[in-house]
Formats: sequence, structure tokens, C-alpha cells
Amino acid sequence: MRCFRPRSSKAVDEVDKTKAVVENHQASQSRQVSRDVRADVSRLMRPDDANIVGNVHGGIILKMIEEAGCIVGTRHCNTQNGDRCLAALVRVEKTEFLCPVFIGEVAHVTADITYTSKHSLEVQVKVMAENILTGAKKLANKAALWYVPCSLKNVEKITEVPPIKYASEEKEEEGRKRYEAQKMERLETKARIEEVVPPPPSPEQHTVGFSQSSLIHLVGPSDCTLHDYVHGGVTMKLMDEVAGIVAARHCNTNIVTASVDAINFHRKIKKGCVVTVTGRLTFVSNKSMEIEVLVDASSLVQEDKGKYRAVSAFFTFISLDKENKPLPVPPLKIDGEEEQRRFEEGKARYLQSKAKRLADKERQQ
Amino acid sequence: MRCFRPRSSKAVDEVDKTKAVVENHQASQSRQVSRDVRADVSRLMRPDDANIVGNVHGGIILKMIEEAGCIVGTRHCNTQNGDRCLAALVRVEKTEFLCPVFIGEVAHVTADITYTSKHSLEVQVKVMAENILTGAKKLANKAALWYVPCSLKNVEKITEVPPIKYASEEKEEEGRKRYEAQKMERLETKARIEEVVPPPPSPEQHTVGFSQSSLIHLVGPSDCTLHDYVHGGVTMKLMDEVAGIVAARHCNTNIVTASVDAINFHRKIKKGCVVTVTGRLTFVSNKSMEIEVLVDASSLVQEDKGKYRAVSAFFTFISLDKENKPLPVPPLKIDGEEEQRRFEEGKARYLQSKAKRLADKERQQ
Amino acid sequence: MRCFRPRSSKAVDEVDKTKAVVENHQASQSRQVSRDVRADVSRLMRPDDANIVGNVHGGIILKMIEEAGCIVGTRHCNTQNGDRCLAALVRVEKTEFLCPVFIGEVAHVTADITYTSKHSLEVQVKVMAENILTGAKKLANKAALWYVPCSLKNVEKITEVPPIKYASEEKEEEGRKRYEAQKMERLETKARIEEVVPPPPSPEQHTVGFSQSSLIHLVGPSDCTLHDYVHGGVTMKLMDEVAGIVAARHCNTNIVTASVDAINFHRKIKKGCVVTVTGRLTFVSNKSMEIEVLVDASSLVQEDKGKYRAVSAFFTFISLDKENKPLPVPPLKIDGEEEQRRFEEGKARYLQSKAKRLADKERQQ
Repeated sequence: MRCFRPRSSKAVDEVDKTKAVVENHQASQSRQVSRDVRADVSRLMRPDDANIVGNVHGGIILKMIEEAGCIVGTRHCNTQNGDRCLAALVRVEKTEFLCPVFIGEVAHVTADITYTSKHSLEVQVKVMAENILTGAKKLANKAALWYVPCSLKNVEKITEVPPIKYASEEKEEEGRKRYEAQKMERLETKARIEEVVPPPPSPEQHTVGFSQSSLIHLVGPSDCTLHDYVHGGVTMKLMDEVAGIVAARHCNTNIVTASVDAINFHRKIKKGCVVTVTGRLTFVSNKSMEIEVLVDASSLVQEDKGKYRAVSAFFTFISLDKENKPLPVPPLKIDGEEEQRRFEEGKARYLQSKAKRLADKERQQ
Repeated sequence: MRCFRPRSSKAVDEVDKTKAVVENHQASQSRQVSRDVRADVSRLMRPDDANIVGNVHGGIILKMIEEAGCIVGTRHCNTQNGDRCLAALVRVEKTEFLCPVFIGEVAHVTADITYTSKHSLEVQVKVMAENILTGAKKLANKAALWYVPCSLKNVEKITEVPPIKYASEEKEEEGRKRYEAQKMERLETKARIEEVVPPPPSPEQHTVGFSQSSLIHLVGPSDCTLHDYVHGGVTMKLMDEVAGIVAARHCNTNIVTASVDAINFHRKIKKGCVVTVTGRLTFVSNKSMEIEVLVDASSLVQEDKGKYRAVSAFFTFISLDKENKPLPVPPLKIDGEEEQRRFEEGKARYLQSKAKRLADKERQQ
Repeated sequence: MRCFRPRSSKAVDEVDKTKAVVENHQASQSRQVSRDVRADVSRLMRPDDANIVGNVHGGIILKMIEEAGCIVGTRHCNTQNGDRCLAALVRVEKTEFLCPVFIGEVAHVTADITYTSKHSLEVQVKVMAENILTGAKKLANKAALWYVPCSLKNVEKITEVPPIKYASEEKEEEGRKRYEAQKMERLETKARIEEVVPPPPSPEQHTVGFSQSSLIHLVGPSDCTLHDYVHGGVTMKLMDEVAGIVAARHCNTNIVTASVDAINFHRKIKKGCVVTVTGRLTFVSNKSMEIEVLVDASSLVQEDKGKYRAVSAFFTFISLDKENKPLPVPPLKIDGEEEQRRFEEGKARYLQSKAKRLADKERQQ
């Protein structure tokens, strides 16, 4: 327990001694690259990182690459006096996945700072995948990322980037060219990026269509039982998530689940399926919202099976203020017969459940 | 919803009563309950389990409830000879969230088998939330779940459930009534559940609309930097996930990320935002698919800010056979000028990138 | 997409070239330590890794330590011909947490093989925590772990461990002494481990029964190795979580792991098992709490195989105020001979460890 006394000079001495040992140890290995301009992130690939045939998702590799880049960038930008800052990603250059990575392999990600301008820096990253059983190593990815340092006090303020030393003038000149090229491209896309029309239209606020939401989930190993079927609890968690998004979109406040109507699980969902969970408002009272949630499953790899309805249920949410007291909910704008019918059914469930609560209370008294 | 009125003395009384019951219940049985008919699941609530004001999502509680139910059900159904089986959830009765649970509290979930029919069993579950700093305990949820045992050898085979002993004939009779009631309701909904028309139509296979997919993600604390802005890597992981679903829907095979075009991050995404990630096919060559991915963010709690485009990018996926060799990809059915324009642009990127690869190769030789 | 044509000789050439570059690059840094006997695991600490005041859980650090140990051990044991094998954790020596780690810091875990016997190997691990904002680095933990290689074909078969080269005969001799010492201790505890029965809970505050806690975990795929056995690090993380709940219940303050006594892993835990982890206070000094943690495993579907004690260990926690300074701990109310005996044993361990720390300090001066 000597450790938790940072004020004790003894402890500090000890830590310093250890630090000296550690540094000495590393120096002896001539890790000549300065610690400021290199970062490593590495870990073992797990079933949750991969698809059902064991290929690690590209997204997992991209996430590790960015983590290494953020570490080396943030570390470097804080090596001088001034505001503390965090390196924020502004651009990733085109990158190729050179070979698949598998569960049980170790991914080693190494990030080096390769160019600095006044307010941005380039990080080049290599991903090596190591099979620890055979010893085989392969280059899985190479990427280049651009970061800018944002002040921790004021995230809109871009701080200055300390310059790095280059191995040669040629290297610096190459870096400057890459910098200019990406700067130009970023300016170009800045205008373009906003234009691309997203597919779904955005209807009027407080209508059913406005808050309606869907999420897609690819069933992974950790979602499943020993049978390779999805745990009912996993499905319910996804349903609650979508219902919560619908409720929050409708009232723009902090919302919580108040109750869930009976749910029947008629069809099982197998590993490797894509689950689409859709939620839409059916009924709104003064202080509660009823959201119908539909769960559809379809196998990605078995064409014949098609999409099928696995579960459906009604969730009731309420909106809370900062002291966790219920807030009024905006009324629902109904459009068409179908929505009206669902609203009436929801109202019937609401009144029935209210009556039952009163009856329960009387019985208890 | 009586639960969210902690100021009402009625509610407090009720909770106290329940607390007394729970404790008494546990004492009187002095853990006499055989291990077959009780299971406990408990854990500390973490930041990722909750929304930005610290309320644990109802879905997290539902998932824990089901885990406890699955454990006690599976354990009980395997206490006799015969096929090994897993308890599969078929129904959850209406349940109410009696009070909010917070980060840092411990959720204790206790599941008891309360009725068995020949092929199904009822599990009643109580969730107590304990503030380990103050010692306060509160009843957060009560639920009743129905399970059927599925054989591990043949998941379609429902095995027999060993009978439990009841405290009294009355208890058994009450259970039988609940069993009959839920059976009836399950039959009714079985017909109804399939009917409910899901909102989006499903267009023709191999069109852009057929494989187009969106996912919604509520930004949690572990997605964010110390600034409370989303890590670029987290966004890229979500983008890869959606692109993978689009690719898999198009070709119904095992797909992997081959490359990602330059990505520019023009706008930051803050904690508590809802991120909508949409992917759609733009171009398909013999052996590759290009998917455009759009990331839109909107704050749930700051009405004024509106939805904005945060990032967009092009992902290229390929389809692999069992030996990880590329497979041909079905051609894309183009519909309308807009899709044609995007296809031509994608083709240009494809040809440019192919030419660049050839040039790189020549230079290296 | 040139990447996914492993059969193309061009692609192979290219990969080989890159590999050469990478290796050359690393060789130029004179990373003299052979790749067989060192492994690094590192990543950024996230909110979910920490408690509500931002201290990273000891269990997260233990899990990373074990991951690094498993990587270096598995890699080394597969450097010779013969069965492919995985390194399975059999023992962790007593380890101390030298200083707290916080969210936003990077944990660097370095594991070196320091001794090999015919069928086991010792790995020494260092954990450095780096604040990337201030550049401060501190030694957070040092640990020693023992692994045995289990054949992938037959998990009961222990394969042979290739010998390592020692820097000096003295180093080898020191390693042999550590090997003999741990071997003896493992044999001793093997006998003791089965007996322990956890007491019933008690309502009175500051008793053993009051703070006693259990959690149940259903082993999922991402908890497991390629063997489908639980990673030792996953078990240690669960143990730390339970011990933390016990400690928080006893003193109602912010608590952190200070040290972990030697842990022996006598029995493996397979995928699909239910793991019950129970923690109870054994001893309390002025400023520390010793918690005994018992891990019992049972197959969910084969209960007849019985529940068995997989691991047990003693965790020491301390209570911290807002400036991370140790707080006094409430005394433990002892009830009965059994608790008194355990208290005395805990006190003996506490005094012994205190004496050892003093001796170490004197030696260093």
C-alpha cells in the first residue's frame, strides 16, 4: 500500500528510482525514436471483433489506428507550454486492407508523426497482425491521418503544433506536399459534403413520422446462447434503445422507460442475422408516450429465408426534469386513419392500465 | 408510473413495504431455496449503461433480468435425465420500472421459478438497486418471464420441464391461472404479430434501395475523448459496420473491407448526440462494391441545433469464399439519373485507383 | 483490393517487401530483445474502465497484464516444433498497485519471459501509465505470472517449454528459486482451496455478513481463448469487481485496489459455465481492508458435474478521499470463531507484508 502516498517523499524517491530503471532499461535497447513521435496500441483479437467466419471487421482496425494516432498526436502537441489540448482527427487518407486479420491474432498498431504544419500534424500508422501460434506476421494496413490540436479549455481554439525534426530536407519537402494536397482536398469536400441528400425525408415535428427510428444490429457471438440463438435479453435491450430514441426525438428531454407491455417471442433469431428494430409513437398522454417496437430479422447469408417478424412490443416512456420529476409531453400530431386507429388502441391500453393500478392500490389499503 | 414520485409518502411506504418483504423473504427462506429454483445476477452499473444524466437504460435492466431467468430456467430443466437443453424466452409479462437506477449503484437481480407446466416454466424476477455509498436499497423492477426448454441437439425440440414443489395448493392454483392466461394471449398475438405493417417498403433485390441501410447510435461516454467529443475511430467503426451490412445484403456472402477512400471530419460530434449512419451502394465492379456512407448527428436535448452532416466517405468491400478468395459480385440495378450519376463517379474513382496501383507497381520494379 | 489475392505471386512479393521494410525499420532501432520473449499491450483508458471518480479499476489492469502474459507465453511456447499450444495462467504472484490510473491516460503493459522450467514459464510484467497531456509517466504495477502450455488438440496435455537464454547464471539461479518457491506454495493451497463455505448475509453494518457480495457471470465467447476456456484475466477482473463492491459496502467511500495476494488457478473454466464470484471481508487494519474472493464454476447444462472451486484469492483495498489520500476504515465486527480465525490469519498476512516492505526499503537505501 505504499503506493497511495504520493506526497511522501520516500514514495516519490522510490517511483523515481523505478522510473530511472525503466528508462535505463529502454535506453539500453536504443529505442532511439523519441517517445514524443511514436505510439503503439496492441491487443488480442476477440470473437466480438470479427464476423461469423472469423475475419476481424475493418472497423475494429480503423478504431485502433485512430486510437494510436490520437495518443501520439495529443502527446506531441502537449510537449510545449500553453493550453493543454487534445488531437482531433480531421482526415484519414485513402487506406487499403492488405490482408485479413483473424480471431486469436495480435494486432500491433504503430503510429509515427511524419509531418507538422503550424496547426496540424500527419500521423502514419502501420498495423501488423501476428499469429502467435505460427509466429507468422503480416502487414494488415497502412494509413495516414491528419489531426489538429483543440484546446481543452475551449474546444473551438486550435493551438499551435510544435515542429518535429525530419531525417532529411527531402522528407520534410515530401511532407509539405502531402500537407498541401490534403488541405486542398479538404476545402473542396467541405462544400460538397453537406449537399449530399440523405435518403429519408424529415417530416413535421411531433408527427409519428418525425420521431420514427430504426436501428440495425448484426448479431455477434456475445449476443448469443450456446445454441447460437440471440438471448431474449439482448433483443429487449435493442428494443428499449430504439424506443428511447423515438421518445427523445419527440420531446427533446431526458426520458426513461416507465413500463413495457407483455412481449411474446414467437420466432428465434440466429447468429449472423441482421436485426432491424423499428420504433414509432402510437399514443401520447399528458405525461407518457407509448412506442410500438417491431423487430425484423433476416439472415445475411441464406437468401431463401427472407425477412421475418421476430418480436413486437409496446414500451411506455416518460420525460423527466433535472430532479427526476415527470414533465408534460408534447401532443402527437396524427395523420391518416391508420395512425388514428393505433392511437385509439394505445389509449385503450393506457386507460386499462391506469384502472388496474387504481384497483391494485385499493386492494392494498 | 407511480414509481417516479419519490416525494409521495404513499410511494415510499410501498417501497418500504416491499423492502421488508424482500428482506423477510430472504431471511425466512434462510437461503433455504434449493439452488435449482433461484438465481442471482448482480453487477455494478457503469457509465456506458446509462444516459448522459446518469439514469441506467431500462434495456440494461431488462437484459440482466433475462440473463437471471435464463440461468435459473436452464439449470432447472437440466436436473433430470434426458437431452441437455437451454431455456429460451417466449414471453415477458407487462413490467414497470419503479424507480431509476444510477451509475455506481449495484443492481441485484433475483430470479425464482414460480410455476412449471409440462413444457414451460414461469420465472419471477426482482431487481433491487443498492447505493453502495449510502447503503440505500430500492426495488427497481419486478418481472415475470416464461421460458421453454429447447434441446441442445435439436433446437426445434421442446423437452419436458421437471415439476417444482409449491408452498401450498393455492400457490399452484394461482400459477396455473397465470399459465392459462398467458397461453391464451400468446396464441392471440401469434396471428397478430406478423400482420403489423413495418413502415419501409422492401424494393427489388440488387437495386440501391434494397441494400441501403441505416443505423442509429446514441453516443455514450466510452465513445468520447476527455473533451466529450466522439473519437474519430468510433465514427469510422460505425461507418464500416453499416457499409458491411449494405455489402452483405447486396451479395449474401462473407464480405470484408478492402479499402476506404479519404475521409474528412468537418464537424465534431458531442456526447449525448444521436448519430445516424446511412450506407448505400454507389458502384459495383466485377469483384468489388463501393458504398457511400453518410454520418448525420443531432443533439437529443438541444432543440435549436438540428441535424447536421458530420462525415461522409466511400468504403470498398469485396466478397470472399471459404478459402478467402474473391467472389464475383452481382451487378447493381440502377434506377434514375441520380443513381446513374453516382455510379459514373464511383466508376471514375475505381478506374483512377486501379491506374494508380499499376503506376505504383511499375515504380517499385 | 490487390490485397486479397494471397495466391498471386505479385501480392506475395509486395507483402514480403513491406515486411522487409518493417523489419528493417525495427532492426535499425536495435530492438535487441528477441521478439519471442517480450510482448506489449497498450490502450487508452475509457470511462467504462473506471469508477465514478475516474480511478481505473484494478481488475482492468489485471486483465491487460494477463493478456500481455498470455501473448508472450503462447508465442514462445510455439517457437519449436510439436503441438500448437496456448499458454494457460496457473498463478499470479502477490502484486501491488503502486499508483492510481485515470481515464484518459494510456496504460502500457510490457511482459517479458524471465524463467522457463520444462513445463512452465514465468512472465514479469510492468505497467506504465502515461498522462499524454502532461507527459508524466508513472509505474502503476509490477507483476509476475506463471503459465503452462496446453495443447490445442488436447487441452489436458501440457507441452514442453523451449528454454530461454539468461543474461547470467545468477539470473537463472534466481529464477529457479522463484520457480521452486511458487511450486511449493501451489501444492499447499491446492489442498486448502476446496473447504471454504461463505456465511449467510447479515443486516448489521460493519459485520462480515453485511458487506459480503456475490456476482454471477455467464461465460461468453469473448471471455475465452481459442480453446474455449476463460482467460485468467477475465476471472481476475470479476474478482476485483466483487472485492470492490464488498469494500465500498463496508466503508461507503471511494475505494481502490491496493494489492492482490498470490492467486493460484487450480481448475479451468469452460465456455458456457456459470461463474459465481463471492467476496467477504477477512481483516481490516486502520487504513486497509482484506477481502477473500472465491470463484466457483458450474456448467449451466451439466449440473450433475457439480460446482467446483476454480480460484480463490485475497484482495486488499484502501479508501481514498477526493485528493486520493487514504482515509481511515471502519473496524470490522467479528462474529464467531470462524470469522475470528480468518481475521487472525489476515492480520498475520498484513503484518508479514508490512515487515517485508520495510525490509525492502532498508535494502534499497
